[in-house]
Amino acid sequence: MDTTTLPQQMIAQLENIVGQSFLFSDTATRTHYGHDETEDYNFPPSVVVKPANAQEISEIMKLANIYKIPVVPIGGRTGLSGGALSIYGGIGLSTERLNSITIDEKNLQAILGPAAITQQFQEAALEKGLFYPPDPSSRGSCTIGGNVAENAGGARAVKYGVTKDYVLNLEVVLPTGEIIRTGANTLKNSTGYNLTQLMVGSEGTLGIITQIVMKLLPKNTHNVLMLVPFFKAEQACEAVAAIFRAGVVPSALEFMERDAIDWGLRFLDNVNLNVKDEVQAHLLIEVDGNYPDILFAEAEKIMNVMEQFDIDEVLYADTEEQKNALWKLRRTVAEAVKSNSIYKEEDTVVPRYELPTLLKGVKAIGEKYGFKSVCYGHAGDGNLHVNIIKGDMSDDNWKNEVPKGIREIFELTVSLKGTLSGEHGIGYVQKNYMDIAFDKKQLGLMKAIKGIFDPNNILNPGKILPDVI
Amino acid sequence: MDTTTLPQQMIAQLENIVGQSFLFSDTATRTHYGHDETEDYNFPPSVVVKPANAQEISEIMKLANIYKIPVVPIGGRTGLSGGALSIYGGIGLSTERLNSITIDEKNLQAILGPAAITQQFQEAALEKGLFYPPDPSSRGSCTIGGNVAENAGGARAVKYGVTKDYVLNLEVVLPTGEIIRTGANTLKNSTGYNLTQLMVGSEGTLGIITQIVMKLLPKNTHNVLMLVPFFKAEQACEAVAAIFRAGVVPSALEFMERDAIDWGLRFLDNVNLNVKDEVQAHLLIEVDGNYPDILFAEAEKIMNVMEQFDIDEVLYADTEEQKNALWKLRRTVAEAVKSNSIYKEEDTVVPRYELPTLLKGVKAIGEKYGFKSVCYGHAGDGNLHVNIIKGDMSDDNWKNEVPKGIREIFELTVSLKGTLSGEHGIGYVQKNYMDIAFDKKQLGLMKAIKGIFDPNNILNPGKILPDVI
Repeated sequence: MDTTTLPQQMIAQLENIVGQSFLFSDTATRTHYGHDETEDYNFPPSVVVKPANAQEISEIMKLANIYKIPVVPIGGRTGLSGGALSIYGGIGLSTERLNSITIDEKNLQAILGPAAITQQFQEAALEKGLFYPPDPSSRGSCTIGGNVAENAGGARAVKYGVTKDYVLNLEVVLPTGEIIRTGANTLKNSTGYNLTQLMVGSEGTLGIITQIVMKLLPKNTHNVLMLVPFFKAEQACEAVAAIFRAGVVPSALEFMERDAIDWGLRFLDNVNLNVKDEVQAHLLIEVDGNYPDILFAEAEKIMNVMEQFDIDEVLYADTEEQKNALWKLRRTVAEAVKSNSIYKEEDTVVPRYELPTLLKGVKAIGEKYGFKSVCYGHAGDGNLHVNIIKGDMSDDNWKNEVPKGIREIFELTVSLKGTLSGEHGIGYVQKNYMDIAFDKKQLGLMKAIKGIFDPNNILNPGKILPDVI
Repeated sequence: MDTTTLPQQMIAQLENIVGQSFLFSDTATRTHYGHDETEDYNFPPSVVVKPANAQEISEIMKLANIYKIPVVPIGGRTGLSGGALSIYGGIGLSTERLNSITIDEKNLQAILGPAAITQQFQEAALEKGLFYPPDPSSRGSCTIGGNVAENAGGARAVKYGVTKDYVLNLEVVLPTGEIIRTGANTLKNSTGYNLTQLMVGSEGTLGIITQIVMKLLPKNTHNVLMLVPFFKAEQACEAVAAIFRAGVVPSALEFMERDAIDWGLRFLDNVNLNVKDEVQAHLLIEVDGNYPDILFAEAEKIMNVMEQFDIDEVLYADTEEQKNALWKLRRTVAEAVKSNSIYKEEDTVVPRYELPTLLKGVKAIGEKYGFKSVCYGHAGDGNLHVNIIKGDMSDDNWKNEVPKGIREIFELTVSLKGTLSGEHGIGYVQKNYMDIAFDKKQLGLMKAIKGIFDPNNILNPGKILPDVI
């Protein structure tokens, strides 16, 4: 498929659907909607449209099928796998006008437009005493529709699960233009094939999500947050599995290599932390609940586990301010690394106990191919973000050698019974590694599913599935 | 499709695959494998095979595709929607020899054969200090493969979720004979379309599950169980949503109508309970955790909610014996009803707050069509089992009028944003109600998915999808 220019007649028809003020073809707007947070890519759509509702999206999809023009759904553009990039041009469909947030207190549910900002949704729930746990680092600007499309996770997944565990029902505009519901607004459902879970994590390739029904929990009133410095990075990874084996399920269990902390501290002005030279890594550990005494008891259990390892003095965050500072430090690592160098971010995931083996393997592969990596992430889930730094590496090496190293990293994760992506999705940048996780039969099933939903292959083409199967 | 007789040559080939002692064509065995717990149906397969492993199952599927003979996977035969019935004869494939249970303490995971008995798995996990929460009433004899196929729930789903929330990865023999893995052994996964969740709840129509990787939790050490008698059944339903709004998430929250308790008590010899004549319904409520003081505090919060309603004296189960007796009473209701009369069991589910409206509607519909119903179930999930009693109703009414009433009940659940089945599946007996929950487009997508996996429509045909779409 080549990059697409839209026929003038089609543009006029699009304008009829969305109205003149919601169609944009100027370079500035196209460039703005041409990128997400994936490396330094920019693939501008030929036009940007901002429909008002599912009905308009349905009409756009029907039109796009007539002209065989690609459509790319665009949310908060915080993605890290290039899911929102208009790699073949065409129509960039921003859902931004569908941003309603309704909290249904009676049923502990929320009804959301796809463009609702995750943090705003969390805060709206909290105001009613309710809790939406999934908590991606980009929550201040990512959209809930994007979270569903990528099956986003975040720091609290270790106790509370990922986005998929909260989605009860979706309204979706199919690539062929029909508007369907995927399920029911119920906590349990054994009624036909699970179209809801097929849509979650499908990265905007099987349908455009126009409404989301989410499950909510009663909110927790208290938490305890501690930062544990380790003199050996691998021991920090080992300690992760040991905490669970002691019977504690923390609400967050984050790993940061020394560089991740250092780069984060340099990036932020107002966070102070003294880290001894010998410290190689930190665990950031949170427990939450409604009873402070219990949380201190759980924290003590965790400390008993920590003391089996070679650690420095533990920092307890005593105030909300300290807690916010530590979370800000953790959330900002990706941005800090990005500000430092061109980089590629891999979203490796393995069974929790295999984390030390993964970390060791990543470093060995880096040495072999001559790249440095900064590693951090959701250790409680076995989800390690590997940021591969370009630094002063030659463009030739970056382009030809590093992908071989990435391939070896993924081969390692799969050999450990893990996979390519824990929460970022495959999108554009990882698709040609999919053969490591799946063979031709599995990929063929996925391709056939795509064909059922999108016979003309116009909805977000060129994503997830490898170029050659 | 007509009932199938197998060619002699094919039987010889099947015998070659599984060995002579694992192929059965005698009437007794065929009848034994011809039923599950669905009403009084018996559809014997033409032959029963008991393969030893995925490889043999793969060869059976390849052979069945050559001869175009239906294959029905058979687990514990405790299903309530007829998923395991060989409605077109053919090969009844019992997975019973694949019953291994391996607990992976290091990763808090289990690796299971599909025929592992759910309760035996739960107990094996508990021995290692781990917890598998899904807890169908039939756990003593149902298999974990059947639980995955039907997306089984049970009493603890209200806090801990259903089977789908624990399945990390599956090994599956596809209808065409290939053996695939659906995902990875990780807690998070955003790598391609979610084949794992597509397989869960697909009722043995998309593949034969040969291995299951399950997530486990650290076990809880304590629980508190109470039985609350209500003078008005609808108030018991209203109290359910009120408990959550008070910020408590019980580990079980079960509703039983007066008749359910009475029939259960008559069925069991050794359970004593004095229930005042005026009591119309009970809630059985459990909270669990590791800290007894907290559980008593949670129980008190629940009591404060209960006192807003018209209740009789609450019974706290003080001993393990009392707890077991109350759970036995609850688990035995379906069997007790069955011993009393021919009945049909509907597995209605709605958003939690709509439960009183559902109960009232079911009773009104019953009056209109002249049937009595016994209602009970997992009220915390909005999942109400409606047992429709034949009693002394004429066969003609049972066959022609009751289905109209059932249709109205499902129309009611869907109008309340609920659906047909919360945890039993659609199988054989509900398939022709599917048009109430889904329109032609949705059903067409499901049928097309079935076609991708099973082009010859030989794996468990005639289930889930309606006869006419």
